[in-house]
Amino acid sequence: MRTAALPARALRAAAQRRAFSSRSLIPNEPLKPQVLTSAVPGPASKAASAEIDKIQDSRTHVLCADYAKSSGNYLVDADGNTLLDVFAQISSIAIGYNVPQMIELAKTDDFITAAINRPALGSFPPKDWAKWLETGLMTVAPKGLDNLVTSLCGSSANETAFKAAFMAYRQRERGSRDAGFTEEELESCMLNHSPGTPKLSVLSFKSGFHGRLFGSLSATRSKAIHKIDIPAFDWPVAPFPALQYPLSENIEANKAEEARCLAEYEEILIASKATQPVAAVIIEPILSEGGDRHASPEFFRALRLTAKKHGAFFIVDEVQTGAGATGTFWAHEKWGLQEGEEPDFVTFSKKMQQAGIFHKPETRPNAPYRNYNTWMGDPMRTLQAREMIKIIRDNNLVEHTRKTGDVLTAALGDVLGRHQGLVLNHRGQNEATFQAFDFVTAAKRDAFVAKMRSKGVQMGGCGEVAVRLRPTLTFGESHVAILADAIDASLKEL
Amino acid sequence: MRTAALPARALRAAAQRRAFSSRSLIPNEPLKPQVLTSAVPGPASKAASAEIDKIQDSRTHVLCADYAKSSGNYLVDADGNTLLDVFAQISSIAIGYNVPQMIELAKTDDFITAAINRPALGSFPPKDWAKWLETGLMTVAPKGLDNLVTSLCGSSANETAFKAAFMAYRQRERGSRDAGFTEEELESCMLNHSPGTPKLSVLSFKSGFHGRLFGSLSATRSKAIHKIDIPAFDWPVAPFPALQYPLSENIEANKAEEARCLAEYEEILIASKATQPVAAVIIEPILSEGGDRHASPEFFRALRLTAKKHGAFFIVDEVQTGAGATGTFWAHEKWGLQEGEEPDFVTFSKKMQQAGIFHKPETRPNAPYRNYNTWMGDPMRTLQAREMIKIIRDNNLVEHTRKTGDVLTAALGDVLGRHQGLVLNHRGQNEATFQAFDFVTAAKRDAFVAKMRSKGVQMGGCGEVAVRLRPTLTFGESHVAILADAIDASLKEL
Repeated sequence: MRTAALPARALRAAAQRRAFSSRSLIPNEPLKPQVLTSAVPGPASKAASAEIDKIQDSRTHVLCADYAKSSGNYLVDADGNTLLDVFAQISSIAIGYNVPQMIELAKTDDFITAAINRPALGSFPPKDWAKWLETGLMTVAPKGLDNLVTSLCGSSANETAFKAAFMAYRQRERGSRDAGFTEEELESCMLNHSPGTPKLSVLSFKSGFHGRLFGSLSATRSKAIHKIDIPAFDWPVAPFPALQYPLSENIEANKAEEARCLAEYEEILIASKATQPVAAVIIEPILSEGGDRHASPEFFRALRLTAKKHGAFFIVDEVQTGAGATGTFWAHEKWGLQEGEEPDFVTFSKKMQQAGIFHKPETRPNAPYRNYNTWMGDPMRTLQAREMIKIIRDNNLVEHTRKTGDVLTAALGDVLGRHQGLVLNHRGQNEATFQAFDFVTAAKRDAFVAKMRSKGVQMGGCGEVAVRLRPTLTFGESHVAILADAIDASLKEL
Repeated sequence: MRTAALPARALRAAAQRRAFSSRSLIPNEPLKPQVLTSAVPGPASKAASAEIDKIQDSRTHVLCADYAKSSGNYLVDADGNTLLDVFAQISSIAIGYNVPQMIELAKTDDFITAAINRPALGSFPPKDWAKWLETGLMTVAPKGLDNLVTSLCGSSANETAFKAAFMAYRQRERGSRDAGFTEEELESCMLNHSPGTPKLSVLSFKSGFHGRLFGSLSATRSKAIHKIDIPAFDWPVAPFPALQYPLSENIEANKAEEARCLAEYEEILIASKATQPVAAVIIEPILSEGGDRHASPEFFRALRLTAKKHGAFFIVDEVQTGAGATGTFWAHEKWGLQEGEEPDFVTFSKKMQQAGIFHKPETRPNAPYRNYNTWMGDPMRTLQAREMIKIIRDNNLVEHTRKTGDVLTAALGDVLGRHQGLVLNHRGQNEATFQAFDFVTAAKRDAFVAKMRSKGVQMGGCGEVAVRLRPTLTFGESHVAILADAIDASLKEL
């Protein structure tokens, strides 16, 4: 039964590759889901949510979890249900739950010291800080981006990049790194008025998601419920291609759609110069919260080159796509950018646990304390990121995920093909396990996610009608089989 | 020598109180500073900074620390210098370094599980989450504020409060919690345009500091270097009283100054209604980064009541003042607010380690996912906050700090009195150890801070010419004596 959903092609490929199994890293990972309650969430989860609701909004709860009992790709809930988790805390678990090597890390003196003595990193860094970065985060620095600012979450990582871009943009306007500020600038910025507070903008794309603080939310264009009633900067939004699937049958139409979006994007960059210049462009390699919207590598490369042509810094938001899940460590590695074409900033968080931005030396601010705050990241999370990167490297987990992606592509292709008219637009086949598909309606999608949970699989939606796969990097062939069977069974019941 | 700087009055008071010593909690805390290098930072610190500088801006470094060797109120640096730390990582260490009880906490299964399995708290909270809050953070909830949203830092705590205030303000305008959004609102907010994106503001005060993300930075009015070149919302700023010291000799002048500021504040609230209404007012009980600026409890109470009168929510930013250092758990407890006059929001971070906002049930958003993000706080930091609160309670550390404040007031009064013409405006005597004083020039202040460090005391500046005391809650009489002697010696050399 385990292989029922896997066509022969995928099985042959699987047999050929070096065997990696999540159980080599996580020996006690369950072999399959187990649902004990008639519905998930069950009574214990619901009771725990009700207790929390006295203090905090519980309407967004899916279930209450028993993290001590969770293992690898399996999330255990308060009722003892064991769920295969392909949502992984909104794409923020890299390797799995309770990976023994991470538990060992947590018991080390370095980790304990870092956890209970959080420093003001910008002023009193630990003496080993450089070593921790050099042997950890810097080993995955995107080519050409050898500077790093750490922060606490994806939203603040993006806003740190925005700030660095605005400062560098103004510095370029002033003509020199050494140019001082005028008295008028120094005084007017205290009133939030120009010229000290400049009229500059960040351009983002329709359906893009970049966070929910005030700067990042101004660039976010996912859903109205994220934005309504919150003051925002009047920054421009460019169209993002609405590709038609399957790609192989819509080559010309999709090319035209991308050309249309590119042209409009460039028009905005040009028009804004007269009113509120675009200092930075921000985009995700796959627009994730907005519904897993993809475009071609050529499209992304053209965005980057066009931004450069018009003097805007280019920020790649890899908060959700980063850390290997798309089959390369950073999703934008697939764009074919040449030397000198690298992004100006790459932002990260989620799976990395330590958030931050990679950038180039020239966007280091010209004076200290300009992009500064109390914590500026967290050494404990940096140690955690270092250990995870080591696990990923030692076990070739990016390559493993790429191969798992092939198996997943075949399995999903097979299952979804049997339910045309209900599901459509299977996508992400070039992005390893970072795949998604749509339902004909949001109601069907929501019903599907609930059915999957009752069959022991935790999935997540995105956009209006999509479900997204966001498994860990130890997710493998055996998990694909379970997932595919559950999808097939759930679709049959819809 | 230890008691040289302590006048008889303080010594008598000290003898009468129950003895608490930091060494009862931290048995291996050093007895005094020890400086081994001719200057601080020494060569090892400088070398570590140089290595970091290849990756990150090091110009803001004070020194590189050896956190494993640091203990209690003493910070050990990379050169082995042992410094009495009265800055405490920009006011963010509550009890001390490597408190044994916190090390024990870090070794517990709950802590390790929370550290390596960070959840998406708003969707998959740990099953014990309510218990952890009820026995921890909620035991220090300000009166009347029984709802809590956790976040990751002070800036995001403030922006979480801003968002809640904006949503509640618009809900009140719509007339009902159940009022839906119009199509026009839903569409316009995706373009950052009104009516979906409302023209509303947050009023803050001159010299106030509320963070450095785009919303919080718009409310921050501390220094130009924090704000210049960064786009900001055109939000209003009200004057904050410039009190004259000593207070007892300037009663009428200070009363007039506060009345002037109050009147101007109310004028802004009224005038803004026609253009960009003030949805929320935010203020720190002591304007800390802005130079430790104080005002009377009556002034703060009037601010709160005036905000209410004009329909603005009132946010008290206790990020720096919270967690006991002012002699009450929250600094605003001294304002004498009556039932029904409580702030709408109290924000916290720093010493608390877990950041967040306390608020009232009526500012819970009317729909889910409106004030939501991936992590929404951190269970590990919540467990840490719970343990710290327990230590504070079990050892009466707020009361201890109040008593230490009396000793400090006497000692500083004595020492500073001997150096009039160089130092002035000693303040915070009603705020336990949360005290500060000014220098005649910024250059003298900076020279003083450097001298203090070379004598084994880590202090921090604030505002233009001030130094601020931000010791931990275990800072006691013996530390005061060392501090006072070092201040005296440093001032003599200036």
